[in-house]
Amino acid sequence: MDWKPYEHNVKYYETDQMAIVHHSNYIRWFEEARVDWLEQVGLPYDEMERRGIIIPVLSVSAEYKTMTRFGETVRILPRLEKYNGVRMEVSYTVVNAGSGEVRCVGRSGHCFLNRDYKPLILKNTAPDYHAVFQQVYAACHREE
Amino acid sequence: MDWKPYEHNVKYYETDQMAIVHHSNYIRWFEEARVDWLEQVGLPYDEMERRGIIIPVLSVSAEYKTMTRFGETVRILPRLEKYNGVRMEVSYTVVNAGSGEVRCVGRSGHCFLNRDYKPLILKNTAPDYHAVFQQVYAACHREE
Amino acid sequence: MDWKPYEHNVKYYETDQMAIVHHSNYIRWFEEARVDWLEQVGLPYDEMERRGIIIPVLSVSAEYKTMTRFGETVRILPRLEKYNGVRMEVSYTVVNAGSGEVRCVGRSGHCFLNRDYKPLILKNTAPDYHAVFQQVYAACHREE
Amino acid sequence: MDWKPYEHNVKYYETDQMAIVHHSNYIRWFEEARVDWLEQVGLPYDEMERRGIIIPVLSVSAEYKTMTRFGETVRILPRLEKYNGVRMEVSYTVVNAGSGEVRCVGRSGHCFLNRDYKPLILKNTAPDYHAVFQQVYAACHREE
Repeated sequence: MDWKPYEHNVKYYETDQMAIVHHSNYIRWFEEARVDWLEQVGLPYDEMERRGIIIPVLSVSAEYKTMTRFGETVRILPRLEKYNGVRMEVSYTVVNAGSGEVRCVGRSGHCFLNRDYKPLILKNTAPDYHAVFQQVYAACHREE
Repeated sequence: MDWKPYEHNVKYYETDQMAIVHHSNYIRWFEEARVDWLEQVGLPYDEMERRGIIIPVLSVSAEYKTMTRFGETVRILPRLEKYNGVRMEVSYTVVNAGSGEVRCVGRSGHCFLNRDYKPLILKNTAPDYHAVFQQVYAACHREE
Repeated sequence: MDWKPYEHNVKYYETDQMAIVHHSNYIRWFEEARVDWLEQVGLPYDEMERRGIIIPVLSVSAEYKTMTRFGETVRILPRLEKYNGVRMEVSYTVVNAGSGEVRCVGRSGHCFLNRDYKPLILKNTAPDYHAVFQQVYAACHREE
Repeated sequence: MDWKPYEHNVKYYETDQMAIVHHSNYIRWFEEARVDWLEQVGLPYDEMERRGIIIPVLSVSAEYKTMTRFGETVRILPRLEKYNGVRMEVSYTVVNAGSGEVRCVGRSGHCFLNRDYKPLILKNTAPDYHAVFQQVYAACHREE
Protein backbone atom coordinates (compact mmCIF):
# COMPACT_ATOMS: atom_id res chain seq x y z
CA MET A 1 0.00 0.00 0.00
CA ASP A 2 1.98 2.92 -1.34
CA TRP A 3 1.38 5.95 -3.52
CA LYS A 4 3.31 8.59 -5.39
CA PRO A 5 2.95 12.31 -4.70
CA TYR A 6 0.71 14.18 -7.09
CA GLU A 7 2.41 16.60 -9.49
CA HIS A 8 0.82 19.80 -10.73
CA ASN A 9 2.26 22.29 -13.23
CA VAL A 10 1.20 25.77 -12.23
CA LYS A 11 -1.21 27.24 -14.77
CA TYR A 12 -1.05 30.83 -15.97
CA TYR A 13 -4.71 31.33 -15.02
CA GLU A 14 -3.88 30.30 -11.46
CA THR A 15 -1.75 33.42 -10.93
CA ASP A 16 -3.09 36.76 -9.72
CA GLN A 17 -1.78 40.30 -10.01
CA MET A 18 0.70 39.69 -7.17
CA ALA A 19 2.37 37.42 -9.81
CA ILE A 20 1.93 34.41 -7.53
CA VAL A 21 -0.60 31.59 -7.40
CA HIS A 22 -3.88 32.81 -5.90
CA HIS A 23 -4.39 31.22 -2.49
CA SER A 24 -7.76 29.70 -3.41
CA ASN A 25 -6.11 27.42 -5.94
CA TYR A 26 -4.27 25.42 -3.29
CA ILE A 27 -7.67 24.28 -2.02
CA ARG A 28 -8.35 22.99 -5.54
CA TRP A 29 -4.92 21.35 -5.65
CA PHE A 30 -5.74 19.52 -2.42
CA GLU A 31 -8.76 18.08 -4.21
CA GLU A 32 -6.70 17.15 -7.28
CA ALA A 33 -4.16 15.40 -5.05
CA ARG A 34 -6.92 13.65 -3.06
CA VAL A 35 -8.63 12.35 -6.20
CA ASP A 36 -5.31 11.16 -7.68
CA TRP A 37 -4.35 9.45 -4.43
CA LEU A 38 -7.74 7.73 -4.04
CA GLU A 39 -7.35 6.45 -7.59
CA GLN A 40 -3.82 5.18 -6.89
CA VAL A 41 -5.01 3.16 -3.87
CA GLY A 42 -7.93 1.68 -5.80
CA LEU A 43 -10.73 4.08 -4.91
CA PRO A 44 -11.47 6.02 -8.12
CA TYR A 45 -13.78 8.85 -7.11
CA ASP A 46 -15.92 8.76 -10.26
CA GLU A 47 -16.62 5.06 -9.59
CA MET A 48 -17.44 5.79 -5.95
CA GLU A 49 -19.96 8.43 -7.03
CA ARG A 50 -21.49 6.02 -9.54
CA ARG A 51 -21.94 3.55 -6.67
CA GLY A 52 -23.76 6.31 -4.83
CA ILE A 53 -21.06 7.38 -2.40
CA ILE A 54 -20.27 11.07 -2.16
CA ILE A 55 -17.41 12.45 -0.06
CA PRO A 56 -18.16 16.13 0.58
CA VAL A 57 -15.73 18.53 2.21
CA LEU A 58 -16.77 19.50 5.74
CA SER A 59 -13.78 21.69 6.49
CA VAL A 60 -10.58 22.87 4.91
CA SER A 61 -7.54 24.78 6.10
CA ALA A 62 -4.24 25.90 4.60
CA GLU A 63 -1.11 27.63 5.80
CA TYR A 64 0.84 29.37 3.06
CA LYS A 65 4.59 29.13 3.72
CA THR A 66 6.20 30.42 0.52
CA MET A 67 4.86 31.77 -2.76
CA THR A 68 4.32 29.58 -5.83
CA ARG A 69 4.90 31.05 -9.26
CA PHE A 70 3.99 30.29 -12.87
CA GLY A 71 6.51 27.95 -14.50
CA GLU A 72 6.85 25.93 -11.32
CA THR A 73 5.81 22.32 -10.69
CA VAL A 74 4.53 21.45 -7.24
CA ARG A 75 4.40 18.03 -5.63
CA ILE A 76 1.58 17.29 -3.23
CA LEU A 77 1.61 14.45 -0.73
CA PRO A 78 -1.72 13.55 0.90
CA ARG A 79 -1.87 11.60 4.16
CA LEU A 80 -4.90 10.02 5.85
CA GLU A 81 -4.73 11.60 9.30
CA LYS A 82 -8.02 10.24 10.71
CA TYR A 83 -10.50 7.63 9.55
CA ASN A 84 -13.31 5.93 11.43
CA GLY A 85 -15.64 4.78 8.64
CA VAL A 86 -17.93 7.78 9.12
CA ARG A 87 -15.53 10.67 8.83
CA MET A 88 -11.97 11.20 7.68
CA GLU A 89 -9.29 13.85 7.71
CA VAL A 90 -6.61 14.21 5.06
CA SER A 91 -3.49 16.39 5.30
CA TYR A 92 -1.51 17.77 2.37
CA THR A 93 2.05 18.98 1.99
CA VAL A 94 2.73 21.05 -1.13
CA VAL A 95 6.39 21.39 -2.06
CA ASN A 96 8.32 22.76 -5.02
CA ALA A 97 9.10 19.70 -7.13
CA GLY A 98 12.68 20.80 -7.72
CA SER A 99 13.93 22.13 -4.41
CA GLY A 100 11.48 20.45 -2.05
CA GLU A 101 10.82 23.83 -0.41
CA VAL A 102 7.45 23.72 1.35
CA ARG A 103 4.89 25.98 -0.29
CA CYS A 104 1.81 25.13 1.75
CA VAL A 105 0.43 22.66 4.28
CA GLY A 106 -3.25 21.97 4.68
CA ARG A 107 -5.98 19.68 5.79
CA SER A 108 -9.50 18.70 4.75
CA GLY A 109 -12.28 16.98 6.70
CA HIS A 110 -14.88 14.74 5.06
CA CYS A 111 -17.86 12.52 5.71
CA PHE A 112 -19.54 9.95 3.46
CA LEU A 113 -23.01 10.59 2.01
CA ASN A 114 -25.44 8.69 -0.18
CA ARG A 115 -27.15 10.18 -3.25
CA ASP A 116 -29.77 11.86 -1.04
CA TYR A 117 -26.98 13.57 0.91
CA LYS A 118 -27.68 11.39 3.98
CA PRO A 119 -24.64 10.29 6.02
CA LEU A 120 -23.65 6.69 5.59
CA ILE A 121 -21.38 4.27 7.41
CA LEU A 122 -18.84 3.13 4.85
CA LYS A 123 -18.27 -0.18 6.67
CA ASN A 124 -21.91 -1.12 6.02
CA THR A 125 -22.49 0.48 2.61
CA ALA A 126 -19.19 -0.41 0.96
CA PRO A 127 -17.11 -2.80 3.10
CA ASP A 128 -14.60 -3.15 0.25
CA TYR A 129 -13.91 0.59 0.25
CA HIS A 130 -13.81 0.58 4.04
CA ALA A 131 -11.11 -2.13 3.97
CA VAL A 132 -8.99 -0.04 1.60
CA PHE A 133 -9.32 3.08 3.75
CA GLN A 134 -8.23 1.02 6.76
CA GLN A 135 -5.17 -0.19 4.86
CA VAL A 136 -4.33 3.35 3.79
CA TYR A 137 -4.73 4.53 7.36
CA ALA A 138 -2.44 1.76 8.59
CA ALA A 139 0.16 2.68 5.95
CA CYS A 140 0.03 6.33 7.01
CA HIS A 141 0.44 5.53 10.69
CA ARG A 142 2.77 2.55 10.40
CA GLU A 143 5.89 4.38 11.43
CA GLU A 144 4.43 6.06 14.51
CA MET B 1 -40.03 44.34 -22.18
CA ASP B 2 -36.87 46.01 -21.02
CA TRP B 3 -33.86 45.13 -18.87
CA LYS B 4 -30.93 46.75 -17.18
CA PRO B 5 -27.32 45.94 -18.00
CA TYR B 6 -25.64 43.57 -15.57
CA GLU B 7 -22.94 45.05 -13.33
CA HIS B 8 -19.91 43.13 -12.14
CA ASN B 9 -17.19 44.34 -9.78
CA VAL B 10 -13.89 42.83 -10.86
CA LYS B 11 -12.64 40.34 -8.28
CA TYR B 12 -9.00 40.12 -7.20
CA TYR B 13 -8.97 36.40 -8.02
CA GLU B 14 -10.03 37.22 -11.59
CA THR B 15 -6.69 38.94 -12.28
CA ASP B 16 -3.58 37.16 -13.55
CA GLN B 17 0.10 38.06 -13.44
CA MET B 18 -0.31 40.49 -16.33
CA ALA B 19 -2.28 42.51 -13.69
CA ILE B 20 -5.40 42.36 -15.85
CA VAL B 21 -8.51 40.18 -15.81
CA HIS B 22 -7.73 36.74 -17.22
CA HIS B 23 -9.50 36.32 -20.55
CA SER B 24 -11.38 33.18 -19.46
CA ASN B 25 -13.36 35.18 -16.91
CA TYR B 26 -15.21 37.15 -19.56
CA ILE B 27 -16.80 33.87 -20.67
CA ARG B 28 -18.02 33.47 -17.08
CA TRP B 29 -19.25 37.07 -17.04
CA PHE B 30 -21.28 36.38 -20.18
CA GLU B 31 -23.00 33.61 -18.22
CA GLU B 32 -23.56 35.87 -15.21
CA ALA B 33 -25.09 38.52 -17.47
CA ARG B 34 -27.22 35.93 -19.29
CA VAL B 35 -28.59 34.49 -16.04
CA ASP B 36 -29.32 37.97 -14.66
CA TRP B 37 -31.03 39.03 -17.88
CA LEU B 38 -33.15 35.86 -18.08
CA GLU B 39 -34.26 36.52 -14.51
CA GLN B 40 -35.12 40.14 -15.32
CA VAL B 41 -37.38 39.10 -18.22
CA GLY B 42 -39.12 36.45 -16.11
CA LEU B 43 -37.11 33.34 -16.99
CA PRO B 44 -35.14 32.48 -13.81
CA TYR B 45 -32.66 29.83 -14.82
CA ASP B 46 -32.86 27.84 -11.58
CA GLU B 47 -36.64 27.55 -12.09
CA MET B 48 -36.15 26.52 -15.74
CA GLU B 49 -33.78 23.74 -14.64
CA ARG B 50 -36.28 22.61 -11.99
CA ARG B 51 -38.88 22.37 -14.76
CA GLY B 52 -36.43 20.17 -16.63
CA ILE B 53 -35.14 22.62 -19.21
CA ILE B 54 -31.39 22.97 -19.61
CA ILE B 55 -29.76 25.58 -21.86
CA PRO B 56 -26.22 24.36 -22.59
CA VAL B 57 -23.61 26.42 -24.37
CA LEU B 58 -22.90 25.16 -27.90
CA SER B 59 -20.41 27.84 -28.83
CA VAL B 60 -18.80 30.92 -27.42
CA SER B 61 -16.59 33.68 -28.79
CA ALA B 62 -15.02 36.84 -27.45
CA GLU B 63 -12.99 39.70 -28.83
CA TYR B 64 -10.94 41.54 -26.26
CA LYS B 65 -10.76 45.27 -27.03
CA THR B 66 -9.17 46.82 -23.93
CA MET B 67 -7.87 45.43 -20.65
CA THR B 68 -9.98 45.25 -17.50
CA ARG B 69 -8.32 45.76 -14.12
CA PHE B 70 -9.04 45.08 -10.48
CA GLY B 71 -11.00 47.91 -8.86
CA GLU B 72 -13.10 48.38 -11.98
CA THR B 73 -16.82 47.77 -12.45
CA VAL B 74 -17.98 46.50 -15.81
CA ARG B 75 -21.45 46.73 -17.29
CA ILE B 76 -22.61 43.92 -19.58
CA LEU B 77 -25.51 44.21 -21.97
CA PRO B 78 -26.85 40.96 -23.45
CA ARG B 79 -28.92 40.93 -26.64
CA LEU B 80 -30.90 38.07 -28.15
CA GLU B 81 -29.45 37.91 -31.67
CA LYS B 82 -31.22 34.78 -32.88
CA TYR B 83 -34.08 32.66 -31.54
CA ASN B 84 -36.17 30.02 -33.24
CA GLY B 85 -37.46 27.94 -30.35
CA VAL B 86 -34.77 25.28 -30.86
CA ARG B 87 -31.61 27.33 -30.74
CA MET B 88 -30.64 30.84 -29.74
CA GLU B 89 -27.68 33.19 -29.97
CA VAL B 90 -26.92 35.89 -27.45
CA SER B 91 -24.40 38.71 -27.87
CA TYR B 92 -22.68 40.62 -25.08
CA THR B 93 -21.05 44.02 -24.87
CA VAL B 94 -18.81 44.55 -21.85
CA VAL B 95 -18.00 48.17 -21.04
CA ASN B 96 -16.31 50.02 -18.22
CA ALA B 97 -19.18 51.23 -16.04
CA GLY B 98 -17.63 54.66 -15.61
CA SER B 99 -16.30 55.62 -19.02
CA GLY B 100 -18.33 53.30 -21.23
CA GLU B 101 -15.13 52.19 -22.95
CA VAL B 102 -15.69 48.83 -24.59
CA ARG B 103 -13.70 46.06 -22.93
CA CYS B 104 -14.97 43.05 -24.83
CA VAL B 105 -17.69 41.89 -27.20
CA GLY B 106 -18.82 38.31 -27.43
CA ARG B 107 -21.46 35.82 -28.35
CA SER B 108 -22.80 32.49 -27.16
CA GLY B 109 -24.89 29.87 -28.94
CA HIS B 110 -27.36 27.63 -27.11
CA CYS B 111 -29.94 24.92 -27.58
CA PHE B 112 -32.61 23.63 -25.20
CA LEU B 113 -32.33 20.16 -23.65
CA ASN B 114 -34.42 18.06 -21.30
CA ARG B 115 -33.03 16.29 -18.21
CA ASP B 116 -31.75 13.42 -20.37
CA TYR B 117 -29.80 15.90 -22.50
CA LYS B 118 -32.16 15.37 -25.44
CA PRO B 119 -32.97 18.44 -27.57
CA LEU B 120 -36.43 19.87 -27.05
CA ILE B 121 -38.61 22.34 -28.88
CA LEU B 122 -39.37 25.09 -26.39
CA LYS B 123 -42.63 25.99 -28.12
CA ASN B 124 -43.98 22.51 -27.29
CA THR B 125 -42.34 21.86 -23.91
CA ALA B 126 -42.78 25.30 -22.38
CA PRO B 127 -44.96 27.58 -24.51
CA ASP B 128 -44.91 30.21 -21.74
CA TYR B 129 -41.12 30.43 -21.92
CA HIS B 130 -41.27 30.41 -25.72
CA ALA B 131 -43.62 33.40 -25.63
CA VAL B 132 -41.22 35.34 -23.41
CA PHE B 133 -38.26 34.55 -25.66
CA GLN B 134 -40.27 35.79 -28.63
CA GLN B 135 -41.04 39.04 -26.82
CA VAL B 136 -37.40 39.49 -25.90
CA TYR B 137 -36.39 38.82 -29.48
CA ALA B 138 -38.91 41.41 -30.70
CA ALA B 139 -37.61 43.96 -28.19
CA CYS B 140 -34.04 43.36 -29.37
CA HIS B 141 -34.92 43.75 -33.04
CA ARG B 142 -37.57 46.46 -32.71
CA GLU B 143 -35.37 49.30 -33.91
CA GLU B 144 -34.09 47.53 -36.97
CA MET C 1 -17.58 52.92 12.04
CA ASP C 2 -20.07 50.45 10.62
CA TRP C 3 -20.42 48.32 7.50
CA LYS C 4 -23.00 46.29 5.68
CA PRO C 5 -22.64 42.57 5.00
CA TYR C 6 -21.46 41.69 1.50
CA GLU C 7 -24.02 40.04 -0.79
CA HIS C 8 -23.13 37.49 -3.44
CA ASN C 9 -25.48 35.83 -5.94
CA VAL C 10 -24.32 32.28 -6.51
CA LYS C 11 -23.01 31.83 -10.05
CA TYR C 12 -23.78 28.80 -12.18
CA TYR C 13 -20.05 28.23 -12.75
CA GLU C 14 -19.55 28.04 -8.98
CA THR C 15 -21.55 24.81 -8.78
CA ASP C 16 -20.08 21.33 -9.21
CA GLN C 17 -21.59 17.99 -10.12
CA MET C 18 -22.92 17.53 -6.58
CA ALA C 19 -25.25 20.42 -7.64
CA ILE C 20 -23.90 22.58 -4.82
CA VAL C 21 -21.32 25.35 -4.69
CA HIS C 22 -17.81 23.90 -4.86
CA HIS C 23 -16.08 24.37 -1.51
CA SER C 24 -13.13 26.29 -3.00
CA ASN C 25 -15.42 29.17 -3.97
CA TYR C 26 -16.13 30.11 -0.36
CA ILE C 27 -12.44 30.99 -0.04
CA ARG C 28 -12.93 33.35 -2.99
CA TRP C 29 -16.09 34.75 -1.40
CA PHE C 30 -14.11 35.53 1.76
CA GLU C 31 -11.82 37.62 -0.40
CA GLU C 32 -14.74 39.35 -2.13
CA ALA C 33 -16.26 40.17 1.27
CA ARG C 34 -12.90 41.36 2.63
CA VAL C 35 -12.30 43.68 -0.34
CA ASP C 36 -15.84 45.07 -0.12
CA TRP C 37 -15.53 45.63 3.63
CA LEU C 38 -12.14 47.34 3.35
CA GLU C 39 -13.63 49.65 0.74
CA GLN C 40 -16.62 50.42 2.98
CA VAL C 41 -14.38 51.46 5.88
CA GLY C 42 -12.20 53.63 3.63
CA LEU C 43 -9.41 51.23 2.69
CA PRO C 44 -9.91 50.46 -1.00
CA TYR C 45 -7.58 47.60 -1.79
CA ASP C 46 -6.64 48.79 -5.27
CA GLU C 47 -5.54 52.12 -3.76
CA MET C 48 -3.57 50.33 -1.04
CA GLU C 49 -1.74 48.31 -3.71
CA ARG C 50 -1.02 51.47 -5.69
CA ARG C 51 0.51 52.94 -2.52
CA GLY C 52 2.71 49.83 -2.38
CA ILE C 53 0.95 47.90 0.36
CA ILE C 54 0.07 44.28 -0.32
CA ILE C 55 -1.97 42.15 2.09
CA PRO C 56 -1.26 38.50 1.23
CA VAL C 57 -3.11 35.58 2.74
CA LEU C 58 -0.98 33.61 5.22
CA SER C 59 -3.66 31.12 6.22
CA VAL C 60 -7.26 30.31 5.55
CA SER C 61 -9.81 27.96 7.05
CA ALA C 62 -13.48 27.17 6.48
CA GLU C 63 -16.10 24.97 8.08
CA TYR C 64 -18.97 24.08 5.79
CA LYS C 65 -22.25 23.91 7.73
CA THR C 66 -24.93 23.60 5.03
CA MET C 67 -24.86 23.43 1.25
CA THR C 68 -25.27 26.49 -0.97
CA ARG C 69 -27.08 26.14 -4.28
CA PHE C 70 -27.41 28.04 -7.55
CA GLY C 71 -30.21 30.61 -7.41
CA GLU C 72 -29.33 31.52 -3.82
CA THR C 73 -27.94 34.81 -2.50
CA VAL C 74 -25.52 34.62 0.41
CA ARG C 75 -24.66 37.37 2.85
CA ILE C 76 -21.13 37.47 4.25
CA LEU C 77 -20.15 39.37 7.38
CA PRO C 78 -16.41 39.90 7.95
CA ARG C 79 -15.04 40.74 11.41
CA LEU C 80 -11.54 41.87 12.37
CA GLU C 81 -10.60 39.29 14.98
CA LYS C 82 -6.97 40.30 15.52
CA TYR C 83 -4.89 43.30 14.46
CA ASN C 84 -1.52 44.49 15.70
CA GLY C 85 -0.20 46.57 12.80
CA VAL C 86 1.93 43.70 11.49
CA ARG C 87 -0.60 40.91 11.15
CA MET C 88 -4.35 40.58 11.19
CA GLU C 89 -7.01 37.91 11.30
CA VAL C 90 -10.44 38.25 9.76
CA SER C 91 -13.40 35.93 10.36
CA TYR C 92 -16.34 35.42 8.02
CA THR C 93 -19.88 34.19 8.51
CA VAL C 94 -21.69 33.17 5.33
CA VAL C 95 -25.49 32.93 5.63
CA ASN C 96 -28.39 32.48 3.25
CA ALA C 97 -29.65 36.00 2.61
CA GLY C 98 -33.27 34.93 2.95
CA SER C 99 -33.39 32.56 5.91
CA GLY C 100 -30.17 33.56 7.68
CA GLU C 101 -29.19 29.87 7.84
CA VAL C 102 -25.44 29.60 8.30
CA ARG C 103 -23.72 28.12 5.26
CA CYS C 104 -20.08 28.45 6.28
CA VAL C 105 -17.80 30.08 8.82
CA GLY C 106 -14.17 30.82 8.14
CA ARG C 107 -11.09 32.82 8.90
CA SER C 108 -8.08 34.26 7.08
CA GLY C 109 -4.71 35.42 8.39
CA HIS C 110 -2.71 38.20 6.75
CA CYS C 111 0.42 40.28 6.99
CA PHE C 112 1.39 43.52 5.25
CA LEU C 113 4.10 43.57 2.57
CA ASN C 114 5.74 46.21 0.39
CA ARG C 115 6.20 45.85 -3.37
CA ASP C 116 9.32 43.71 -2.85
CA TYR C 117 7.29 41.32 -0.70
CA LYS C 118 9.11 42.46 2.45
CA PRO C 119 7.03 42.70 5.66
CA LEU C 120 6.15 46.20 6.76
CA ILE C 121 4.78 47.78 9.92
CA LEU C 122 1.58 49.53 8.88
CA LYS C 123 1.86 52.07 11.72
CA ASN C 124 5.11 53.36 10.18
CA THR C 125 4.38 52.95 6.47
CA ALA C 126 0.78 54.14 6.42
CA PRO C 127 -0.30 55.61 9.77
CA ASP C 128 -3.61 56.70 8.21
CA TYR C 129 -4.46 53.09 7.28
CA HIS C 130 -3.25 51.93 10.68
CA ALA C 131 -5.66 54.34 12.40
CA VAL C 132 -8.58 52.98 10.37
CA PHE C 133 -7.70 49.37 11.18
CA GLN C 134 -7.59 50.32 14.86
CA GLN C 135 -11.03 51.89 14.61
CA VAL C 136 -12.39 48.83 12.83
CA TYR C 137 -10.86 46.61 15.48
CA ALA C 138 -12.44 48.71 18.23
CA ALA C 139 -15.83 48.53 16.48
CA CYS C 140 -15.55 44.75 16.24
CA HIS C 141 -14.65 44.32 19.90
CA ARG C 142 -16.78 47.09 21.38
CA GLU C 143 -19.48 44.84 22.75
CA GLU C 144 -17.14 42.43 24.51
CA MET D 1 9.92 20.15 -35.24
CA ASP D 2 7.24 18.03 -33.64
CA TRP D 3 5.18 18.04 -30.45
CA LYS D 4 2.92 15.78 -28.47
CA PRO D 5 -0.70 16.61 -27.69
CA TYR D 6 -1.30 18.00 -24.21
CA GLU D 7 -3.15 15.74 -21.78
CA HIS D 8 -5.48 17.02 -19.09
CA ASN D 9 -7.30 14.97 -16.45
CA VAL D 10 -10.67 16.54 -15.80
CA LYS D 11 -10.83 18.01 -12.31
CA TYR D 12 -13.86 17.68 -10.05
CA TYR D 13 -13.95 21.46 -9.58
CA GLU D 14 -14.23 21.87 -13.37
CA THR D 15 -17.69 20.26 -13.39
CA ASP D 16 -20.93 22.17 -12.89
CA GLN D 17 -24.41 21.08 -11.82
CA MET D 18 -25.12 19.71 -15.30
CA ALA D 19 -22.51 17.09 -14.25
CA ILE D 20 -20.31 18.07 -17.18
CA VAL D 21 -17.27 20.29 -17.52
CA HIS D 22 -18.27 23.96 -17.42
CA HIS D 23 -17.72 25.50 -20.85
CA SER D 24 -15.41 28.25 -19.54
CA ASN D 25 -12.79 25.67 -18.59
CA TYR D 26 -12.07 24.73 -22.19
CA ILE D 27 -10.79 28.28 -22.69
CA ARG D 28 -8.39 27.61 -19.81
CA TRP D 29 -7.44 24.25 -21.32
CA PHE D 30 -6.56 26.00 -24.57
CA GLU D 31 -4.11 28.11 -22.56
CA GLU D 32 -2.69 25.05 -20.79
CA ALA D 33 -2.19 23.34 -24.14
CA ARG D 34 -0.65 26.48 -25.68
CA VAL D 35 1.83 26.91 -22.82
CA ASP D 36 2.78 23.21 -22.94
CA TRP D 37 3.23 23.33 -26.71
CA LEU D 38 5.34 26.50 -26.61
CA GLU D 39 7.54 24.82 -24.03
CA GLN D 40 7.86 21.68 -26.19
CA VAL D 41 9.05 23.70 -29.20
CA GLY D 42 11.56 25.66 -27.10
CA LEU D 43 9.54 28.76 -26.21
CA PRO D 44 8.84 28.47 -22.46
CA TYR D 45 6.32 31.16 -21.65
CA ASP D 46 7.74 32.06 -18.24
CA GLU D 47 11.13 32.70 -19.90
CA MET D 48 9.49 34.79 -22.63
CA GLU D 49 7.79 36.94 -19.99
CA ARG D 50 11.11 37.34 -18.14
CA ARG D 51 12.60 38.58 -21.41
CA GLY D 52 9.80 41.12 -21.54
CA ILE D 53 7.56 39.50 -24.14
CA ILE D 54 3.90 39.09 -23.32
CA ILE D 55 1.44 37.23 -25.57
CA PRO D 56 -2.06 38.42 -24.63
CA VAL D 57 -5.24 36.88 -25.97
CA LEU D 58 -7.04 39.13 -28.46
CA SER D 59 -9.85 36.75 -29.26
CA VAL D 60 -11.06 33.30 -28.43
CA SER D 61 -13.75 31.00 -29.75
CA ALA D 62 -14.95 27.49 -29.02
CA GLU D 63 -17.48 25.09 -30.45
CA TYR D 64 -18.63 22.43 -28.01
CA LYS D 65 -19.27 19.15 -29.81
CA THR D 66 -19.81 16.60 -27.02
CA MET D 67 -19.81 16.81 -23.22
CA THR D 68 -16.74 16.11 -21.11
CA ARG D 69 -17.18 14.47 -17.72
CA PHE D 70 -15.22 14.02 -14.52
CA GLY D 71 -13.00 10.94 -14.64
CA GLU D 72 -12.12 11.57 -18.27
CA THR D 73 -8.75 12.52 -19.76
CA VAL D 74 -8.75 14.85 -22.74
CA ARG D 75 -6.02 15.29 -25.31
CA ILE D 76 -5.54 18.72 -26.84
CA LEU D 77 -3.66 19.37 -30.07
CA PRO D 78 -2.71 22.99 -30.81
CA ARG D 79 -1.85 24.13 -34.34
CA LEU D 80 -0.35 27.43 -35.47
CA GLU D 81 -2.90 28.59 -38.04
CA LYS D 82 -1.47 32.03 -38.73
CA TYR D 83 1.78 33.80 -37.86
CA ASN D 84 3.31 36.95 -39.27
CA GLY D 85 5.64 38.09 -36.49
CA VAL D 86 3.10 40.61 -35.18
CA ARG D 87 0.05 38.45 -34.64
CA MET D 88 -0.73 34.76 -34.51
CA GLU D 89 -3.71 32.44 -34.43
CA VAL D 90 -3.72 29.05 -32.79
CA SER D 91 -6.40 26.38 -33.18
CA TYR D 92 -7.16 23.59 -30.71
CA THR D 93 -8.81 20.22 -31.03
CA VAL D 94 -9.92 18.65 -27.76
CA VAL D 95 -10.61 14.91 -27.91
CA ASN D 96 -11.34 12.18 -25.40
CA ALA D 97 -7.97 10.52 -24.83
CA GLY D 98 -9.46 7.03 -25.02
CA SER D 99 -11.94 7.10 -27.87
CA GLY D 100 -10.64 10.11 -29.80
CA GLU D 101 -14.18 11.51 -29.87
CA VAL D 102 -14.02 15.27 -30.46
CA ARG D 103 -15.18 17.25 -27.45
CA CYS D 104 -14.44 20.77 -28.61
CA VAL D 105 -12.64 22.78 -31.28
CA GLY D 106 -11.46 26.31 -30.76
CA ARG D 107 -9.14 29.08 -31.70
CA SER D 108 -7.29 31.95 -30.05
CA GLY D 109 -5.79 35.11 -31.54
CA HIS D 110 -2.73 36.82 -30.07
CA CYS D 111 -0.31 39.67 -30.51
CA PHE D 112 3.08 40.29 -28.91
CA LEU D 113 3.56 43.07 -26.34
CA ASN D 114 6.44 44.45 -24.33
CA ARG D 115 6.30 45.08 -20.55
CA ASP D 116 4.52 48.41 -21.13
CA TYR D 117 1.83 46.61 -23.12
CA LYS D 118 3.06 48.17 -26.37
CA PRO D 119 2.91 45.97 -29.50
CA LEU D 120 6.25 44.64 -30.68
CA ILE D 121 7.54 42.99 -33.83
CA LEU D 122 8.94 39.65 -32.74
CA LYS D 123 11.37 39.52 -35.66
CA ASN D 124 13.09 42.65 -34.30
CA THR D 125 12.75 42.12 -30.56
CA ALA D 126 13.49 38.41 -30.41
CA PRO D 127 14.68 37.03 -33.76
CA ASP D 128 15.44 33.66 -32.11
CA TYR D 129 11.82 33.29 -31.03
CA HIS D 130 10.65 34.50 -34.44
CA ALA D 131 12.71 31.77 -36.11
CA VAL D 132 11.10 29.12 -33.95
CA PHE D 133 7.58 30.38 -34.66
CA GLN D 134 8.40 30.25 -38.37
CA GLN D 135 9.57 26.65 -38.05
CA VAL D 136 6.43 25.74 -36.12
CA TYR D 137 4.30 27.44 -38.75
CA ALA D 138 6.09 25.53 -41.51
CA ALA D 139 5.59 22.25 -39.65
CA CYS D 140 1.86 22.98 -39.28
CA HIS D 141 1.40 23.82 -42.94
CA ARG D 142 3.86 21.31 -44.42
CA GLU D 143 1.24 18.93 -45.70
CA GLU D 144 -0.95 21.49 -47.38
